[in-house]
Amino acid sequence: MEKIPVGILGATGMVGQQYIALLANHPWFEVRYVAASPRSAGKLYSEAVGGKWNATRGDLGGTSRLDAASLIVEDANDVTKAAAAVKRGDCAFVFSALEMGKDEITALEDSYAAAGIPVVSNASANRWTSDVPMLIAEVNPGHADIIPLQKKNRGWDKGFIAVKPNCSIQSYMTPLWALLQAGYGVQRIIVSTLQAVSGGGYPGVPSLDIVDNVVPYIGGEEEKTEQEPLKILGSIQGNSFVNAPGPKISAHCNRVPVIDGHTACVSLEFGAKKPSIDEIKRIWTDFRALPQELDLPMAPNQPIIIREEPNRPQPRKDRDAEKGMAVSIGRLRPCNVFDIRFVAVSHNTVRGAAGGGILNAELLKAKGYLG
Amino acid sequence: MEKIPVGILGATGMVGQQYIALLANHPWFEVRYVAASPRSAGKLYSEAVGGKWNATRGDLGGTSRLDAASLIVEDANDVTKAAAAVKRGDCAFVFSALEMGKDEITALEDSYAAAGIPVVSNASANRWTSDVPMLIAEVNPGHADIIPLQKKNRGWDKGFIAVKPNCSIQSYMTPLWALLQAGYGVQRIIVSTLQAVSGGGYPGVPSLDIVDNVVPYIGGEEEKTEQEPLKILGSIQGNSFVNAPGPKISAHCNRVPVIDGHTACVSLEFGAKKPSIDEIKRIWTDFRALPQELDLPMAPNQPIIIREEPNRPQPRKDRDAEKGMAVSIGRLRPCNVFDIRFVAVSHNTVRGAAGGGILNAELLKAKGYLG
Amino acid sequence: MEKIPVGILGATGMVGQQYIALLANHPWFEVRYVAASPRSAGKLYSEAVGGKWNATRGDLGGTSRLDAASLIVEDANDVTKAAAAVKRGDCAFVFSALEMGKDEITALEDSYAAAGIPVVSNASANRWTSDVPMLIAEVNPGHADIIPLQKKNRGWDKGFIAVKPNCSIQSYMTPLWALLQAGYGVQRIIVSTLQAVSGGGYPGVPSLDIVDNVVPYIGGEEEKTEQEPLKILGSIQGNSFVNAPGPKISAHCNRVPVIDGHTACVSLEFGAKKPSIDEIKRIWTDFRALPQELDLPMAPNQPIIIREEPNRPQPRKDRDAEKGMAVSIGRLRPCNVFDIRFVAVSHNTVRGAAGGGILNAELLKAKGYLG
Amino acid sequence: MEKIPVGILGATGMVGQQYIALLANHPWFEVRYVAASPRSAGKLYSEAVGGKWNATRGDLGGTSRLDAASLIVEDANDVTKAAAAVKRGDCAFVFSALEMGKDEITALEDSYAAAGIPVVSNASANRWTSDVPMLIAEVNPGHADIIPLQKKNRGWDKGFIAVKPNCSIQSYMTPLWALLQAGYGVQRIIVSTLQAVSGGGYPGVPSLDIVDNVVPYIGGEEEKTEQEPLKILGSIQGNSFVNAPGPKISAHCNRVPVIDGHTACVSLEFGAKKPSIDEIKRIWTDFRALPQELDLPMAPNQPIIIREEPNRPQPRKDRDAEKGMAVSIGRLRPCNVFDIRFVAVSHNTVRGAAGGGILNAELLKAKGYLG
Repeated sequence: MEKIPVGILGATGMVGQQYIALLANHPWFEVRYVAASPRSAGKLYSEAVGGKWNATRGDLGGTSRLDAASLIVEDANDVTKAAAAVKRGDCAFVFSALEMGKDEITALEDSYAAAGIPVVSNASANRWTSDVPMLIAEVNPGHADIIPLQKKNRGWDKGFIAVKPNCSIQSYMTPLWALLQAGYGVQRIIVSTLQAVSGGGYPGVPSLDIVDNVVPYIGGEEEKTEQEPLKILGSIQGNSFVNAPGPKISAHCNRVPVIDGHTACVSLEFGAKKPSIDEIKRIWTDFRALPQELDLPMAPNQPIIIREEPNRPQPRKDRDAEKGMAVSIGRLRPCNVFDIRFVAVSHNTVRGAAGGGILNAELLKAKGYLG
Repeated sequence: MEKIPVGILGATGMVGQQYIALLANHPWFEVRYVAASPRSAGKLYSEAVGGKWNATRGDLGGTSRLDAASLIVEDANDVTKAAAAVKRGDCAFVFSALEMGKDEITALEDSYAAAGIPVVSNASANRWTSDVPMLIAEVNPGHADIIPLQKKNRGWDKGFIAVKPNCSIQSYMTPLWALLQAGYGVQRIIVSTLQAVSGGGYPGVPSLDIVDNVVPYIGGEEEKTEQEPLKILGSIQGNSFVNAPGPKISAHCNRVPVIDGHTACVSLEFGAKKPSIDEIKRIWTDFRALPQELDLPMAPNQPIIIREEPNRPQPRKDRDAEKGMAVSIGRLRPCNVFDIRFVAVSHNTVRGAAGGGILNAELLKAKGYLG
Repeated sequence: MEKIPVGILGATGMVGQQYIALLANHPWFEVRYVAASPRSAGKLYSEAVGGKWNATRGDLGGTSRLDAASLIVEDANDVTKAAAAVKRGDCAFVFSALEMGKDEITALEDSYAAAGIPVVSNASANRWTSDVPMLIAEVNPGHADIIPLQKKNRGWDKGFIAVKPNCSIQSYMTPLWALLQAGYGVQRIIVSTLQAVSGGGYPGVPSLDIVDNVVPYIGGEEEKTEQEPLKILGSIQGNSFVNAPGPKISAHCNRVPVIDGHTACVSLEFGAKKPSIDEIKRIWTDFRALPQELDLPMAPNQPIIIREEPNRPQPRKDRDAEKGMAVSIGRLRPCNVFDIRFVAVSHNTVRGAAGGGILNAELLKAKGYLG
Repeated sequence: MEKIPVGILGATGMVGQQYIALLANHPWFEVRYVAASPRSAGKLYSEAVGGKWNATRGDLGGTSRLDAASLIVEDANDVTKAAAAVKRGDCAFVFSALEMGKDEITALEDSYAAAGIPVVSNASANRWTSDVPMLIAEVNPGHADIIPLQKKNRGWDKGFIAVKPNCSIQSYMTPLWALLQAGYGVQRIIVSTLQAVSGGGYPGVPSLDIVDNVVPYIGGEEEKTEQEPLKILGSIQGNSFVNAPGPKISAHCNRVPVIDGHTACVSLEFGAKKPSIDEIKRIWTDFRALPQELDLPMAPNQPIIIREEPNRPQPRKDRDAEKGMAVSIGRLRPCNVFDIRFVAVSHNTVRGAAGGGILNAELLKAKGYLG
């Protein structure tokens, strides 16, 4: 099978780099178009990222060894250029890892879609756009089915926008979903996250703020952590999404001196029906969803991994489980205040960013939305 | 005034070092007796701690500059030696920073007390002994008044045991107490702590476990964090303490790569009567207690400091507030699930260990229990 | 004695903050004028640095408690404002901790001096200006005596410029000077530095570059490390400085995940006359210089501290020796290739920046150059 | 081809874990025998390492997924057990990653060899045994040819001992050898290393010593760094090795807060014949040796990788180059004091430990010494 040519917007940023690294040797997709800020435009990709390469994978001996190394970086604001790439067969759709203001990203992603280029986005700008699906492939793959409506709403022919949620919720949304799906309603969640510095992009978090320190604040992160799950658990009604009524979530988001891997300490209150600890372990261990059924290349075989050691999961030791795409859970035990509590770890720039975006694209491809 | 000679048990450990450092130039107390494991016994204190000195303060140019540097380390198991030191006027009471098994510490602290030597302890061994007060000087100074009963119970003449609680609760017990005292009952608390490595002693946490990592588990810590507040908020009934009935606390305790300073993310549910955010700030800012009234040397002038910056408190930047004896609080805001949430930081080896122990001794002295 | 009012240029940066912190309660100087970029101008100092406060000292409970908290930040480019402050008695001279391009700093420092305001600078811009002294108070205090010539060269009445060298050389320049002064010529030095992130200012080094990592490169640092010693060891000839002919220095400068404190691993080759290890220890231990004779407030009593433990000095444990103004040296031993090798640590933002600048100002005051 | 069954002594330690991880899916070798301290003996391997797993690779979702997980750990002191394993076809030779005193290791490795079991060792105990080869597969593969003599010396039939050198020299020995082989003699080297904490084993370096700190001392490391190269560059004369006369090496060994990857800052003086910078780059880029010719499974395709970015190599970003088996070099430039200087990074627990040991075993197999 010939590979599908893809583009990456924001290709030189932290998440953009991760896309480049993860798409090297991808069985379906091939990066043939990279775009970033005007400052990087015109440079070789390998030069543009030079000493700033921070992706976990790839670059094992030099960015010049990357598949995308010899691509010329284009200006991400130049949609005409991208349209020309589409025309000459170098770009079937784009991954958006843009790092700009919300309004600029919204406008730019819209322009790409309007120009006939599907946008699979990591950016938060369009997450609350009413007809844009916010996808976690294992949780709400059906939300992709709003795409025809979205196209119709906008008068777009081939282009559309699909987004993924914030990295901070990846570690507990799939486990939460598995419980809901097994028939156990969840009323309330109080979660504290210990988030890696790569989540802040590059240059991102200054070392003076994080060596021998933690920062108990990440701008906008708690709101996202509390609200995005409601859309993901919501439903399509008419032309747009309607939020689920619950669960109620309270989040404390902390930055910690960890390179990759977000950790979440979760206390959770069920509704009237309460599973036993053993039942929960069984539900999580057995959980499989559409990406596993479709055997999508980026899908983890085991989406939720239970760790029985008392001191796991830990970000450095568990972030890479299942190529960085699984959630590792441990310390599942009764909560003194709610019903249960546990610790969950997932890789924020793989599962929580580029890897999740790629899995979304694979899902959209399998569902026929990417041609 | 002539200084009171004091001894330190476990003087070469992490907390013992902190005692030595904090008692240098103390206006009331003077370290004249140091005891540790048989391995250290017979050495000069400066040699025994040599390359293992990890206290935050003191040693600014060499442990040989410490007041205690030229003391010979005694065997902490040798109570007879200590009794001789008492006799010759070198030790009026001891601070216990022993690092041994629970049973060994209980037995050893009992032996010291039985030998007529008051024990002001940091160790957890005697915290749940029914007639031993677990003191936070600003919160339950009245609990010290069980001491005459304790002496009577045990048939001890001059000796007694008083302890302090675990470092993990220091950052929120004083604020909690201030709210209770102002008439606002508290039902439930869910807290996640991000605790410094110095809390694990030395050698303690291996660097392989904590560089680029967090460990979401500290053995025994969550139980202490959940239960000790109930004794502290309890009351003397007859010969012993009876726990307060609440609040219910659920704790997630994490180790993070921070040298000193424990951070707590707290979600709190009041009873029927709920103060406003402004009212809480006023209560905390105005809070003063017996240590402040007595102007005890180690007491912070401002026990609770409110920070208004969005990203504070932080352990490295706030742990030293009020000589490491204050609690710094920030991010006070409504909780999505309970009533309020906030972040609190305190210095675990100062306020949470040696500094808290010294303040307890000052309180006991002021109350007349140390002769 | 009434305190001398001083100003700080670049007051909100990393080094500027350190000046504010170190000058709180200074016996001679009082900060009455603070200036920074136009972005900060007009704000209260406490607000301007708000969540960005990174100085090691001060702020123990809030920047609002700083002496300088309630000063309004001025625009550092506005020399007229500063001249007005001089006129009204709020500024006798300025410390320059400007963070701009070299040419801008040179021009701005010149403007202040031309306006009659002495400039005691940390910036590198004027270090190689031929009639500007580059002072380490213990090493070349006599270089201050070029100031009358400088004034004459420039036609300046009261203003002048004096600078300090780069922080990377602080840890070995005083020991080197002590050896030279004792009559032991030094031919060659190969030094590797392990430098703290605070040396890069704020935001400075991104955490993604330094957590679980070192960066073996700091732009321009090796050149400074190799060349500045030659001016410091040089002499005034006619109107300007002439470099010393040696020693030859080769520097490898590395950034490491340490907040404060630069470490240098030094291999050193003497000339024909070679002291014994014991002789060197004696020379360093006994070393005193003009700042000690004059008993300047910021001067360390013991400028060079010898540590005998096998694993010292270490930046976190030794940077604060003598209020951060001493150099701590350990591991003095024969070198397999040159004559001796040793490890030296000094505090880069105290001794190596603001503290060194204050000591220079004290020296200039004692010598009568600051009125 | 049927895989060769191998055993690992010290299998639960840091290096032992790395052997287990790297041998998973090895094309030639299969771990069928694991031995460790009596404390671990009798446990399942997955349980014995449980919460202490620190190897970089493997364990992506649980140690229970490792090939070796279900092996029972044996007592490494019990050579009879190992001999029985050999007899039943479960162990053709052993990798020794023993962590004991030097004399114990020497005696134990001798016992294994005497019992007919070849020992490919990481331990330092036998490095200076006169008839034991200390191998870097790319540098001195010919030293393996002492093995028949060694067997004869000891009266051993099938067993023998081969060792690898210390991890601290891996990053510059291959580059040094490439220069020597190209005809450029090297007189003197001064090197400062910045070494990862994994080099200290587990629990190893306490976090209190290394967070916000560096430790400029590693016991015994500088001696190894200075002396081992001379044996490696030496020759077989008669029954034993004779050291090369040079180069003279002076090493400063530092521990830094990095998990994996040793960095070396090297200043090097050639003899009379001095290559240009470009010539050196060519020599290093083109360097290939016997492991590459034999296409050994663990051999890096490109043993020495030149990085042109100004700030590379860095341990976190470059340690994994060529599966952790390459040396990455950057900042090659003239030295102010010697001829050239450069920075080299290699992975200390892969290339510098288990990976290097496996490559040695592959070499020995290819040469016919492992049956």
